[in-house]
Amino acid sequence: MPELRIDIDAIGRNTESVAALLRSRGLDLVAVTKGCLGEPRVASAMLAGGAVAIADTRDRNLHRLRSALPNVELHRIHLPSFSEPFEPGDVTYVSNREGAEAVASLGQGHGSGGRKVMIHAETGDEREGVPMDLLLELATEIAADPRLRLLGVATNYACFKGKPEGIRRSVEAIARAAAELRQAGLGLERVSGGNSSLLWLLAEGHALPAEVTEARCGEALLLGRDALYYQPLPGCRTDACLLRAEVVEEYTRPAARGPARRLVLGIGRQDLGTGAVKFAEPGLSEVGRSADYTVVEAGEACPRTPIGTMIDMIPSYEALVAVWTSPYVELALVNRL
Amino acid sequence: MPELRIDIDAIGRNTESVAALLRSRGLDLVAVTKGCLGEPRVASAMLAGGAVAIADTRDRNLHRLRSALPNVELHRIHLPSFSEPFEPGDVTYVSNREGAEAVASLGQGHGSGGRKVMIHAETGDEREGVPMDLLLELATEIAADPRLRLLGVATNYACFKGKPEGIRRSVEAIARAAAELRQAGLGLERVSGGNSSLLWLLAEGHALPAEVTEARCGEALLLGRDALYYQPLPGCRTDACLLRAEVVEEYTRPAARGPARRLVLGIGRQDLGTGAVKFAEPGLSEVGRSADYTVVEAGEACPRTPIGTMIDMIPSYEALVAVWTSPYVELALVNRL
Repeated sequence: MPELRIDIDAIGRNTESVAALLRSRGLDLVAVTKGCLGEPRVASAMLAGGAVAIADTRDRNLHRLRSALPNVELHRIHLPSFSEPFEPGDVTYVSNREGAEAVASLGQGHGSGGRKVMIHAETGDEREGVPMDLLLELATEIAADPRLRLLGVATNYACFKGKPEGIRRSVEAIARAAAELRQAGLGLERVSGGNSSLLWLLAEGHALPAEVTEARCGEALLLGRDALYYQPLPGCRTDACLLRAEVVEEYTRPAARGPARRLVLGIGRQDLGTGAVKFAEPGLSEVGRSADYTVVEAGEACPRTPIGTMIDMIPSYEALVAVWTSPYVELALVNRL
Repeated sequence: MPELRIDIDAIGRNTESVAALLRSRGLDLVAVTKGCLGEPRVASAMLAGGAVAIADTRDRNLHRLRSALPNVELHRIHLPSFSEPFEPGDVTYVSNREGAEAVASLGQGHGSGGRKVMIHAETGDEREGVPMDLLLELATEIAADPRLRLLGVATNYACFKGKPEGIRRSVEAIARAAAELRQAGLGLERVSGGNSSLLWLLAEGHALPAEVTEARCGEALLLGRDALYYQPLPGCRTDACLLRAEVVEEYTRPAARGPARRLVLGIGRQDLGTGAVKFAEPGLSEVGRSADYTVVEAGEACPRTPIGTMIDMIPSYEALVAVWTSPYVELALVNRL
């Protein structure tokens, strides 16, 4: 059975490094746990490392987190669903009137001043978010609803169609929008400038607009890299999440450049999706994968890998999410705090 | 929450149609349940529909099946793993000496004559399987091992690199190999000619070589299509597996050909992988997906789809496997036998 080996201590230290980088620019870290299915032990390490709140997209994860960490501020960063209640978040992200109404219909919640809402605005990634020309109207409606409390605005970039070079335009757009809403008399405590892709700007020494108060990071904490160019971040380990799968077959077969040693690993798309993995061993390159297998070519640089050998891989974020989701991969949490 | 609606009765009737198609050529149906995570209620419908055995790739699924269906012949069609025992199968597929030894080391099992083994041979798909020039040696070794019983040979095609036009060469290669092994004095009861991709040949009226005794089909039973050109099979329903996801956002946005209505559905790669889906509604086309969302363009042919609407989709096999794997999709088994 493949194994996903998660070094909790390394994730905690990655979080410290990312939180320090953000803090040096006056920004808070909201830690995103969707990549680890809202695993509370990972969330605890992120909180110990300096995160001020936990964010997740899935209600099932938020319920887990709420049970384990009753006093932590939870952000529900997925757009509201109308087919079921979505109680577990303290802060809900909405992008339209219907979403705001769905949150409002849950009642005022335990706190005073109504349920806290962040408005998600679209700044170039072409995925979710209210278009900029409709933001003021939506914000005004939310601010006027006594069941809701407009906490701030947020955006996301580099998760869908946004090209890396557009990151600065994205964060400047959300900052400008926040300034305009404030000029229109709307109070905004928080401006969430983006995800782990923002960290590339910070690591490169760029400044963010003064309006931005926080970033939502998950990928960087788990994998130690920014999510724009996937560069290692200062002080972060990139091997906190390690995947191991077994060689179940090894034959020399015809290949493009003459006969080649081909390994079949006992892990496939059902476990990895199509997200990339990086082999720890030199000389290994992936040929492809099907539902249950990954086929790998072993070049001359690769030592012998007899059947039964466990092959170490560093998953990309997409592969990590898939691996953590698969019930066919054994999860090993090591170095627990 | 997205919903996967499985019509058990329709799968049973698809199985009857596929079993009849195979039986008309003298072939047995071995039903593959990896696409439904070894769900015993689906497996029961497949057995009632005429399957002679159940095959799966995952031990966890095989354990579920063994508990629910103690007397059914179970095929473990994944290559043996060495990191853990793999007891649940009655018939194990191997492709190398190490795999055969791993099965032999489990002891003789309950039956007489040793543990039943099928040798998986490679016939053009470039994934797993013993190369043809090594088959006789491996078969001879297995036949000589008193702990093992050589049941037959098997191959697989169109799961990895094999192009559709090579299907005939694949099935002819395994048939020829079986004939050669028999000429060498090895007894082979069974020759498993391939998966649901073989059904295209049969539906088109082609004959299979006389040596082939059975096919392993899962995709065709669940989705009602062959797995080569994905054509509907005679007597099969293609909507036995229906996926529904919610519209959580709808805005008119700039697009390639002017402003377009864009929907955001509350389902993403964590649930669907990258496998295709087909929308039941006309006028919908997918723009792309990220971990939590699928973005869809709604053309003029598509009626209004207000936020909260459930959108129906027929998943491809790859998407179906991912959806069934995701804990964030509600499984609804309807029309149970």
